[in-house]
Amino acid sequence: MARRVDVAIIGAGTAGLAAMAQVRKAKRSFVLIDGGELGTTCARVGCMPSKAAIQIADDFHRRNHFARIGIKGDETLTMDSAVALERVRELRDMFVDRVLAGTTDELTDEFIEGRAEFMGPDVLRVDDQVINARRIVIATGSRPIVPPAWAAFRDRVLTTDEIFEQEALPGSMAVVGLGVIGLELGQALHRLGVRVTGIDQLTRIAGLQDPVVSDNACEILSQEFPLWLGKTAEVTEHEGKLRVKSGEHSAIVDKVLASMGRKPDLETLGIDKLDTEIGTNGVPAFDANTMQVGELPVFIAGDATGEKAILHEVADEGRIAGYNAAREEVRAFRRKVPIAITFCDPNIASVGAAWTELNQESIAVGEMRIGPVGRALIMGRNRGVLRLYADKNTAKLLGAAMIAPGGEHLAHLIAWSIQQGLTVFDMLKLPYYHPTLEEAIQSALQAMAARLKGAASDLASLDSL
Amino acid sequence: MARRVDVAIIGAGTAGLAAMAQVRKAKRSFVLIDGGELGTTCARVGCMPSKAAIQIADDFHRRNHFARIGIKGDETLTMDSAVALERVRELRDMFVDRVLAGTTDELTDEFIEGRAEFMGPDVLRVDDQVINARRIVIATGSRPIVPPAWAAFRDRVLTTDEIFEQEALPGSMAVVGLGVIGLELGQALHRLGVRVTGIDQLTRIAGLQDPVVSDNACEILSQEFPLWLGKTAEVTEHEGKLRVKSGEHSAIVDKVLASMGRKPDLETLGIDKLDTEIGTNGVPAFDANTMQVGELPVFIAGDATGEKAILHEVADEGRIAGYNAAREEVRAFRRKVPIAITFCDPNIASVGAAWTELNQESIAVGEMRIGPVGRALIMGRNRGVLRLYADKNTAKLLGAAMIAPGGEHLAHLIAWSIQQGLTVFDMLKLPYYHPTLEEAIQSALQAMAARLKGAASDLASLDSL
Repeated sequence: MARRVDVAIIGAGTAGLAAMAQVRKAKRSFVLIDGGELGTTCARVGCMPSKAAIQIADDFHRRNHFARIGIKGDETLTMDSAVALERVRELRDMFVDRVLAGTTDELTDEFIEGRAEFMGPDVLRVDDQVINARRIVIATGSRPIVPPAWAAFRDRVLTTDEIFEQEALPGSMAVVGLGVIGLELGQALHRLGVRVTGIDQLTRIAGLQDPVVSDNACEILSQEFPLWLGKTAEVTEHEGKLRVKSGEHSAIVDKVLASMGRKPDLETLGIDKLDTEIGTNGVPAFDANTMQVGELPVFIAGDATGEKAILHEVADEGRIAGYNAAREEVRAFRRKVPIAITFCDPNIASVGAAWTELNQESIAVGEMRIGPVGRALIMGRNRGVLRLYADKNTAKLLGAAMIAPGGEHLAHLIAWSIQQGLTVFDMLKLPYYHPTLEEAIQSALQAMAARLKGAASDLASLDSL
Repeated sequence: MARRVDVAIIGAGTAGLAAMAQVRKAKRSFVLIDGGELGTTCARVGCMPSKAAIQIADDFHRRNHFARIGIKGDETLTMDSAVALERVRELRDMFVDRVLAGTTDELTDEFIEGRAEFMGPDVLRVDDQVINARRIVIATGSRPIVPPAWAAFRDRVLTTDEIFEQEALPGSMAVVGLGVIGLELGQALHRLGVRVTGIDQLTRIAGLQDPVVSDNACEILSQEFPLWLGKTAEVTEHEGKLRVKSGEHSAIVDKVLASMGRKPDLETLGIDKLDTEIGTNGVPAFDANTMQVGELPVFIAGDATGEKAILHEVADEGRIAGYNAAREEVRAFRRKVPIAITFCDPNIASVGAAWTELNQESIAVGEMRIGPVGRALIMGRNRGVLRLYADKNTAKLLGAAMIAPGGEHLAHLIAWSIQQGLTVFDMLKLPYYHPTLEEAIQSALQAMAARLKGAASDLASLDSL
């Protein structure tokens, strides 16, 4: 006999759990279905273990600064990567436990273990169980992309599913794909002692659209390990190791890190049973403000959408999907100003409108090189560039791109300002403490203010009472 | 013969130079008078050399974290404080040069070297030169307070004027006064290898008003070096060293750091020639929005005011004073939301209204302990507490106090939000990237939101379209 619920949520990751919280709040009956390992992508293989590895790598790398500041003995420091990896797993396990506590741990018969498959827009099958649901939320997440041709040497290909499980690090690796994951882990692995080669078929890295920032980022990061850009990587077996070729470059490596992005986990879901438009990436068309799939009683959220795989966005999508799945009328919500951060050193961040989305005739750009920024100099981390974009006519801030120390913090200030519709002049009236990295924003704004209409104010930094 | 100018500016520090820029912009004739060493307090003995020392001390201290994360050999690291101090001076000299370049360097007969003295509200004497000025700006700065009783062993008392000039560090020091300078330098000296004892007659440190944050700050910082609080320090000579007593505590130390604050440099200025009210601290009464002294054609700015000795505030004061000194009508300007940061580890920061300025009946408090903050855990810096204050009725954010890693960054976000009049609910709708320290603000806001009127929103973090 079919089980009847108000809402069926497929996937118990960040998006699914956020959806569940909304459904519960609305006091609807529900089931939460998951067939994989519990714990979110973020906690298990994403944000958290990567940040833990980066922190250790950064602490070890810092020894290169020691002689200059009077710390002696840096040459005797060594990295025990087995301990480092154990520390990463220890932190990861704690974060996973924390996610599970108070969510799936407390569910009883609302939780169904198994793989769900659509039989229709309001019917699912999980193994031999049929579930009729008034609404269904797809929150199945994603998995790392590994080219099928690499199956022959899959044991020597690492993804984020495997890298944190290693007992020791390989001597050499090619990192194929220089988006967020490739750059974060590539740099961390290099700093932990792995001979890393970074490869991407694009000439820009970290998803950067701004040519000035991307060029500067390539220049800075390639001082640590080689970046082969603009040509596809070809990987073949070679005497128990792997040969990696990209254009005229070639190298023999122990392992390859596949960091070419993640793919929505939708194949086994029977999406074709839904009478709706399916995109080339296999994702059904949906509305990003309601998370509704077409006109169906189906909602989608999180990495399954194939879009922003960023925790706070994924949680918002889960909330929106859950909120709407629990109600008769579908409500549209405003999405947050986009932020994307690559936590390499220096941080790379993009905020708001990207360079290529803007009409360059209608914007003013404010640029600040990090070289002379006082605080960055003191930190011995004065590399990078910050670029702000504002509308030439309204002076409203529209977007930013940067490679900068503390970029994660600057990105928040900039995103908050954009979301509130602040102009360059509004922002110059806000406090910038000295000496902080935030002064780089102030300098970029000042550079931009001179080029904007209405700049003639006597005291741009002060408001008359 | 008396020299006639539109504006005479006394003091070529941050405030004086900011005032000069405004006077120049208004195309007024002026003189800039300074009798001391050129270069701002900030660059010479304040913000910059202290941050440089803190950075080095923090880098060295970090070795205590190494074993846990797989870095071996930390026990062989040593600090060569002579090299460290040389590095501090090298950075300082660069910052001083930068301040001088393009300001006093390019002045010719507009710059007068010497000590100015009022003969009346529009007449100054500098040595044997008389200057008639339509307006006068007092920007004479401040100097460290050293109790007169310490004159007998002044050679063993260090202030910020002397500490960065040392060739090597003493074996032991008492730090008397645990405000910004005492805590920043006290912790840095301790971490560089000096046996430090911190003493303050107050029971709260870093100027904190919030009892919870102050208690937590004392607890955290006293794990590194002893803090003797609540009793005045008595210092006496003892066999070539110094005996320091405070209540029942007593110690013998090599040197004392006098960090009891700074005193406006006004004594030799002949302020008594001005027919105006003089405060107990020797500072003439002035309006903080116009910087005008009483009704006189005299303005005051910067450390000379005896108030916020914080660079961006001092620069604002200089701008306001210079703007008004260059014009017939006096204009009032809005001052920025106050921020005060002590750059110890973790950072201590106060923003907006202080705890003691608020009616505790009418506010809601949002508290977040840093212990469980994911990113802080990963950094191995998860100590501290963040407290936000909002108006119970309007939900507007009013102030904050914290001891927190990255407090300098959180303080900016909070100050910007207060200056824009944001409510707790407005702030919850802004993006918080994961995993960042900024999520501590989000958690504190969530804790507070539940206690505020109008909290019943279904989706506090999302706006309907």
